[in-house]
Amino acid sequence: MDHTDRTDLSPPSAAREAIRDLARSTGTEHVPLDEASGRVLAERIEAGLDVPGFDRAALDGYALRAADTDGAGEGMDSADENELARLALVGTVRAGERPDVSVGEGEAVEISTGAVLPPGADAMVPVEQTERVSADEPSSSGDEEVRVEPILAAGDNVSPAGSDIAAGQRALGPGTRLTPREIGLLAALGTETVAVRSPPRVGIVSTGDELVPPGDPIDGRRGEIYDVNGVAIAAAVEAAGGDPVRYPHVGDDWEAMEAVLRTAADECDLVLSSGSTSAGALDVVYRLVDELGELLLHGVRIKPGKPMLVGRLDGTGYVGLPGYPVSAMTVFRTFVAPAIRAAAGQPAPRTATVTGRMAVDERFAEDRHRLVPVGLIEPATTTDEDSTDSEILEGHAAASSPPLVYPVDRGSGATTSLARADGVVEMPAATDRLAAGERVTVSLFSPSVRPPSLLVVGEDDPTVSRALDDLENPRYLSDGSRPALRSLAAGVPDVAVVAGPIEDGHDGRELTRFTREWGLLVPAGNPDEVAGVADLVDRDLSFVNRTADSGLRRQFDAELAAFASTPGRDRAAVVSAIDGVDIGLPGHESPARRVARGEADVGLGLRDSAGGDLSFVSLGEQPVRLLANPDRVGKLAIDQLIAAIDRRTGP
Amino acid sequence: MDHTDRTDLSPPSAAREAIRDLARSTGTEHVPLDEASGRVLAERIEAGLDVPGFDRAALDGYALRAADTDGAGEGMDSADENELARLALVGTVRAGERPDVSVGEGEAVEISTGAVLPPGADAMVPVEQTERVSADEPSSSGDEEVRVEPILAAGDNVSPAGSDIAAGQRALGPGTRLTPREIGLLAALGTETVAVRSPPRVGIVSTGDELVPPGDPIDGRRGEIYDVNGVAIAAAVEAAGGDPVRYPHVGDDWEAMEAVLRTAADECDLVLSSGSTSAGALDVVYRLVDELGELLLHGVRIKPGKPMLVGRLDGTGYVGLPGYPVSAMTVFRTFVAPAIRAAAGQPAPRTATVTGRMAVDERFAEDRHRLVPVGLIEPATTTDEDSTDSEILEGHAAASSPPLVYPVDRGSGATTSLARADGVVEMPAATDRLAAGERVTVSLFSPSVRPPSLLVVGEDDPTVSRALDDLENPRYLSDGSRPALRSLAAGVPDVAVVAGPIEDGHDGRELTRFTREWGLLVPAGNPDEVAGVADLVDRDLSFVNRTADSGLRRQFDAELAAFASTPGRDRAAVVSAIDGVDIGLPGHESPARRVARGEADVGLGLRDSAGGDLSFVSLGEQPVRLLANPDRVGKLAIDQLIAAIDRRTGP
Repeated sequence: MDHTDRTDLSPPSAAREAIRDLARSTGTEHVPLDEASGRVLAERIEAGLDVPGFDRAALDGYALRAADTDGAGEGMDSADENELARLALVGTVRAGERPDVSVGEGEAVEISTGAVLPPGADAMVPVEQTERVSADEPSSSGDEEVRVEPILAAGDNVSPAGSDIAAGQRALGPGTRLTPREIGLLAALGTETVAVRSPPRVGIVSTGDELVPPGDPIDGRRGEIYDVNGVAIAAAVEAAGGDPVRYPHVGDDWEAMEAVLRTAADECDLVLSSGSTSAGALDVVYRLVDELGELLLHGVRIKPGKPMLVGRLDGTGYVGLPGYPVSAMTVFRTFVAPAIRAAAGQPAPRTATVTGRMAVDERFAEDRHRLVPVGLIEPATTTDEDSTDSEILEGHAAASSPPLVYPVDRGSGATTSLARADGVVEMPAATDRLAAGERVTVSLFSPSVRPPSLLVVGEDDPTVSRALDDLENPRYLSDGSRPALRSLAAGVPDVAVVAGPIEDGHDGRELTRFTREWGLLVPAGNPDEVAGVADLVDRDLSFVNRTADSGLRRQFDAELAAFASTPGRDRAAVVSAIDGVDIGLPGHESPARRVARGEADVGLGLRDSAGGDLSFVSLGEQPVRLLANPDRVGKLAIDQLIAAIDRRTGP
Repeated sequence: MDHTDRTDLSPPSAAREAIRDLARSTGTEHVPLDEASGRVLAERIEAGLDVPGFDRAALDGYALRAADTDGAGEGMDSADENELARLALVGTVRAGERPDVSVGEGEAVEISTGAVLPPGADAMVPVEQTERVSADEPSSSGDEEVRVEPILAAGDNVSPAGSDIAAGQRALGPGTRLTPREIGLLAALGTETVAVRSPPRVGIVSTGDELVPPGDPIDGRRGEIYDVNGVAIAAAVEAAGGDPVRYPHVGDDWEAMEAVLRTAADECDLVLSSGSTSAGALDVVYRLVDELGELLLHGVRIKPGKPMLVGRLDGTGYVGLPGYPVSAMTVFRTFVAPAIRAAAGQPAPRTATVTGRMAVDERFAEDRHRLVPVGLIEPATTTDEDSTDSEILEGHAAASSPPLVYPVDRGSGATTSLARADGVVEMPAATDRLAAGERVTVSLFSPSVRPPSLLVVGEDDPTVSRALDDLENPRYLSDGSRPALRSLAAGVPDVAVVAGPIEDGHDGRELTRFTREWGLLVPAGNPDEVAGVADLVDRDLSFVNRTADSGLRRQFDAELAAFASTPGRDRAAVVSAIDGVDIGLPGHESPARRVARGEADVGLGLRDSAGGDLSFVSLGEQPVRLLANPDRVGKLAIDQLIAAIDRRTGP
């Protein structure tokens, strides 16, 4: 049943507005000051006391009467050194002490920074502008005197009581987000606990018979998959300032779904469901919304997000998100996160967006408003944490060039797209092209998303995979050698990893190369006594291959071609004689794992995968080349990668 | 005792390097996935299973054999509608179900998105490209057929097992910071708990006899102040990814300080102390460092931070920070936070810095490397959260103009400077001037610092103070009318609040004005029967005044001048006859509070402060004017402020 049709889809702005109106903040709670960082003040704060609470010495020195420094008397030239004020030292006040002495005419008291100005004093002089001498005429109060160089005015070098903030003054307004600065100010006011807004409680319900909670056993034959949205959306809710409440996932069972949604609506300020686009699930939600509340929007003129459902359940806001993780996160990021932030009183994070340049040309056929998942690439110039004396602050030279932006064109059903994409670029319906070099605004999936230090695409290779562990925040898209060369030609990756028979003509600059041993993986001890390709062709062995995109497969194909060229062999016959030659698996270990599970006799692979349950039959070595994008050869991370590879492949 | 002298101060870069080497990460801990957001992976993650775990239908439609769609036979024109493939419908597979049917030649199975491709099928066709019809010849398998429009290839609309990520492939590298995306990927892999780096434990010790923990009673006469640094630095440590451990603050008592520092060194990965610049405290630290570890640096060629101490206590890194909160936070931000982040494996936040333009000219006399606390001002153009269909993503139009930057020139001893400053601009020793308009990089005190929506300076006025509660994130520096006019002339504030007798000649554009009633605050019931200025002059009453910077004081001075101009009066005599006329207090309620505490008989103030223990003797009304910086009249927040004032002062 399709409840939406093109004509009554709502515009995206209406959806955003409707959702913003749904999320409500719930109230106020009191938290200790040391747990208040990041929270939002529920009320204004007026200073309850003066800070400082007393007239305070700003420096180490002497408290005195300013009038005593105005020369030795009227009409005298006080610049004359002989006429410097000489004051009798009558005591000492330290910080945290109540003065036990007062300052009379012609007297001074030694005082330390932060101490209470003693009675009688109205100014102080820093110790650097004085000289301590023996008194000409020792008196009862002591035998030392202080010579004071400057002429002082009342108040000099003294912070009067309340000068920092006075009792009754506005300290902080309602809605202030508390950072360490504001925490410090509240501490100065003696605050022990603080009234902050309660975060909105956001219920999260994943639906779908196929979902299994992470950690539980999974049965692929039943089409089970782990529930991704539950925990990912919960993390995103928290990042937006909400309090995520996860409910047990429900299948397409009507009663169960109704029970969970009613409970969530009762306990939360906003309910999000994701998944199950099945008619049954949608029907339950429709019926519930119909019975318990109102349907505000069904269907939004945007991709992804068309089937978005917005309404109320028993007065509680409800948003139905798509099931595919990338779609769910994109819709959440765009429509729901702002509403949660508004309800929580949290400002939009500054890093919600970055401006970048398109790395490639991108065309769009469909004239629907689109949210395009994109990846980010750092341009060639990078900064590191090394610093000079004139640039000791972090990131001083950063923010130089904008990052490059490329669409992540995997299907939205791919879970890993989440980790492949850094954010979303918005494409109005009228736009059908983003030209390479064009400036675009990327809305990041979360404020702490960072572009990878290096984008490496290509062959799934264990040496490269491990070498990348030495780098900070690289991204490795191991989709195969063939797509890597295409991608490199389009100018996207920093480095392409290409394995297999050498071909001329590529767009990269070769950085380094190494060889890897390839061959056939068989059960431990090689029970079938497999020796090479001939056994696959001539015997009844089930084989598992790699994808056609992999350099390993190309090497195997070349080996087959060589074998077929021997007298009495025919290429087509050779290929068709191998049981399973068309089963091309994605990862370099995938065939090996099938063999290890007893699901096949022989798998194409690398020596690296041998051991344990598997033996290895070597068929030779193949080169693996790292090709750099010529525009990015200056990147620091490229040098780091080469060094990491060399450490692993060197002599 | 001064342990530092100019000649052996270390360069800032040496201090930063030394501190970075001190902080060490401690190890690994395992956390549930739903608590892992923001944490840093301790080890690489390889996929332990294929995702998806089965060949998966990408859409709702029909599973079939691709070969069956290749026209009705060889040599035929398959575009001919009559020759569309017609397949017998033999069953259904839903998501989360194990297929109980297989697909033979000429057969199709209804399949829903995410379901397992049944045995025999190698492709699927989306429902939109099919038509369901009655079978011409009903068979045992059913009486429905599916007409399939497209010609399909094996694999079409199917996500093969492992195509998302294959078992054995690199999923995430060590050191990856987990955002909701990575959490989602880990969920897809079935991860229940994840090994993350333990945050470095950072011990925080505040020293000083004068410190009192927030919440405890305080005795201003003893010079006590609340401990600001303890909680503010703890919040900053947490923001940097550390685990703050606060210790009881210690005075200058040697044994106590030694005991606390030894305990902290034993329990933590890094120890920070702040405060007590007293010789006694420094001596304890020197002795401890000498006994237990090594002194790496004492004194850094930077302001603030000169007395910074860097060393090891029993092998644990130790940094002594300045006592003044702004200095402590500035030094922490610059030298310590990067070390904690590095130890925690947290990347420097992107918003650690923003680029702005100087709002004013600033000159520096001293040739020391300086970290200058600055405030930020949003330029005139602002964005709000309203959105159009073509700009629904947050912040799309933001990041337009850089913020304006002005030095916060209060003494670093002022606690409120913390809340007045947004970050720090670094000035190399060689620079003696920052010109207005010059671009500077501001290192924010914390990543979530936002420039205020409006910078209001001027008279401390209760109406303005409350009106600002209606605005989001304004900043109000209520230092008085006179400084406001100077500041407005320099181009700093958005709005100046000026109270008192009207003067010509100012640099602002008047936005609105209102009047407030001013006069004298006396104990409830006015026991002394104070009626006006004459009572202050002619009777023995103690009086408390406002600062000379306030418009209220100027009004009072004008009243005094008028009184002195009556026959038989003399200005100087009138003023000197008032006991306390020189005691100028900072806040509009400060005099009233002194009267309420019984410390004075009469205080200058506003009707607003009357009530409870205080009665009010009106002396008249005075205008309060809001003057806008002409460059900023377009700011949205200015309109909001005027509306908020009008709501409170309107008829």
